[in-house]
Amino acid sequence: MCGSASVPLVAAANYSAIVGMIGAGQLARMCQRAAIDLAVRLEVLAASEHDPAAHAGAPATIGDPLDPDAVAAFASGVDVVTLDHELVSAEGLRLAAANGTPVVPNPEALRFAQDKLFARSELARRGHPVPGFRAVASVEDVVGFAGDHGWPVVLKMATMGYDGRGVEIVADENEAAIVVAREGTWVAEEYLDLAMELAVLVVRRPSGQTAVYPVVETVQEDGICIELVMPARAPDGIAERAVELARSVVEEIDASGNVAVELFVTRDGRLLINEFAMRPHNSGHATIEGAVTSQFHNHLRAVLDWPLGATDLVAPAVAMVNLLGSGGESAAMRNLPEALAVDGAAIHLYAKEERVGRKIGHVTALGDTVDEALGTARHAVAILRGAT
Amino acid sequence: MCGSASVPLVAAANYSAIVGMIGAGQLARMCQRAAIDLAVRLEVLAASEHDPAAHAGAPATIGDPLDPDAVAAFASGVDVVTLDHELVSAEGLRLAAANGTPVVPNPEALRFAQDKLFARSELARRGHPVPGFRAVASVEDVVGFAGDHGWPVVLKMATMGYDGRGVEIVADENEAAIVVAREGTWVAEEYLDLAMELAVLVVRRPSGQTAVYPVVETVQEDGICIELVMPARAPDGIAERAVELARSVVEEIDASGNVAVELFVTRDGRLLINEFAMRPHNSGHATIEGAVTSQFHNHLRAVLDWPLGATDLVAPAVAMVNLLGSGGESAAMRNLPEALAVDGAAIHLYAKEERVGRKIGHVTALGDTVDEALGTARHAVAILRGAT
Repeated sequence: MCGSASVPLVAAANYSAIVGMIGAGQLARMCQRAAIDLAVRLEVLAASEHDPAAHAGAPATIGDPLDPDAVAAFASGVDVVTLDHELVSAEGLRLAAANGTPVVPNPEALRFAQDKLFARSELARRGHPVPGFRAVASVEDVVGFAGDHGWPVVLKMATMGYDGRGVEIVADENEAAIVVAREGTWVAEEYLDLAMELAVLVVRRPSGQTAVYPVVETVQEDGICIELVMPARAPDGIAERAVELARSVVEEIDASGNVAVELFVTRDGRLLINEFAMRPHNSGHATIEGAVTSQFHNHLRAVLDWPLGATDLVAPAVAMVNLLGSGGESAAMRNLPEALAVDGAAIHLYAKEERVGRKIGHVTALGDTVDEALGTARHAVAILRGAT
Repeated sequence: MCGSASVPLVAAANYSAIVGMIGAGQLARMCQRAAIDLAVRLEVLAASEHDPAAHAGAPATIGDPLDPDAVAAFASGVDVVTLDHELVSAEGLRLAAANGTPVVPNPEALRFAQDKLFARSELARRGHPVPGFRAVASVEDVVGFAGDHGWPVVLKMATMGYDGRGVEIVADENEAAIVVAREGTWVAEEYLDLAMELAVLVVRRPSGQTAVYPVVETVQEDGICIELVMPARAPDGIAERAVELARSVVEEIDASGNVAVELFVTRDGRLLINEFAMRPHNSGHATIEGAVTSQFHNHLRAVLDWPLGATDLVAPAVAMVNLLGSGGESAAMRNLPEALAVDGAAIHLYAKEERVGRKIGHVTALGDTVDEALGTARHAVAILRGAT
């Protein structure tokens, strides 16, 4: 927010505010639901008129989020700029801020989400727990890292990776050579024996108010989140430590808006910070039905520096299962009516063309137990995928 | 649905279906939230590009809903036609149905919502409980009716009335003379000593599946609903009788989609059918946060003949308070951030320019008791109106 806690509102009589979101995927699409409630005009910088948020009716400007001028021009027409994804020109955001449009999160904090090497280094320097890591420029560097941490080694692109892309697990020197020969800055990371992965959703106003959702347990497959439950089934004390760690780091680095802090829990009991998403996040989808205030409502409220809503769960257990494309042409669209017959399944489709493995929707369910909620959500997803 | 239970889907790969809604007010606006979840493309026939649903991003065709040709042309591009309000050309809907586009509710059932005289007469003929009534063409007719039922007499326009417009309470012959001299068909109705007003939301698929929400208690002021609670605080047995009556009448007249059945409870214990709304209705707004499935989701599911969702409440008590314009220019928009600080208040603004008495939003709250929920919602509304 660049030091200012008040947002100048240029909205017309029909709007409470104009929020500009860079990117127009499913996160922007679900923000549009919340924008409708709050009479916010949500403008999106989209790659195409067929992006999910454009199909949800958010006014779209077509432009490249990596083009500084496109970002700055888009920002000039809105009250505040925020993000649907982090593959955005940092220079464009700095230009926007310099021109007087608040940017949430601020570009300095955003670097923690955009640059894994910077984030790991900076967090380690500040004494926060992160996996063992090292910047590697050659296969010799990887071999040296493996000498300290053993094989296999995880190689991550420092920037531009998401959903498992830009992450490689290499078993030996030969595999490492193939990866580091590729373009980009690579970071070597110790291969962890994971007990579980967690996400803590922190929402923070630029002026300081912070709210935290109950800890989410996420399950990944091939680097993509496939399902989650709230609250996490974590060992004693881990959930509390995760909340405290996430909140304190978000405050320390002055991030704002919705911030998902992803954490590793290792079998030997370590709690390590993995990465940040500074926007609504897949790990928070279940808050639409599962929490008093959804992450999408709270993100809009946070970026406008408005009071945040309660983050309590509305049921003892909440589960969400991602719907990945099954390959059948519009299978999910065709199977939707049948899936709606699953009692208690809240189905969300993103209006995306279906491709194998592509995130095209999700299903949330509430229950008295995690197993009950997961069972309902999985059942509906299986029908949507035509797998029943 | 004109006898057909299957909806031909013409939607592209990005949509599960295309629903055409005639009217683009707040009901269509809130349907747009549900349409986003279900990947439904919600097209609206709007009076203006500034209608609430158009501001929510529903693709809008500007046209007159009372023009049969405009209605028929609009219908030709969608999978199914439904309504945001009932001030719609019945001929246009019949044309649409004749051209092969399903209309929900079907035009025959819709007459019960469009023509009060027809509805009263037909319900009475079928033996259902309605207030005493008589068509009146002259002041002598009103005097005659008062001879049987006493003064005052309620005079209602047979068609085109809503939100208290087209309803007059006349104390004597002189007042009656002024009203019946106006254009339109008038119906005289006995003046009732009301204990309370109820609404029962029935959702019905054209193929027959029916779901009913818990009975709503509505509070009117000058003919406009100002607040409601769920479940209704009705005398023993009244809620059950109201549900049974509403469900059986909706099935009997073959209405479908969301149908609000408004009922009177008199101090002498009579339960009488007042009127129907065949679309999402103000009395159902609290289902967004208060029920497992909102009336807007269920309306879309019903008109597409898809399985309906559960109608159970998610809290012991649910309250909703309408936000009527206070006269201050954009007062609600300006006061929104302050109102968001009210814990547990779910605020909905309709993106309408503020005018005195105009419905521009509503606030829903859940609670362990009706008083708690009402207190929260009233508090937020008072702030939005600048009355604190």
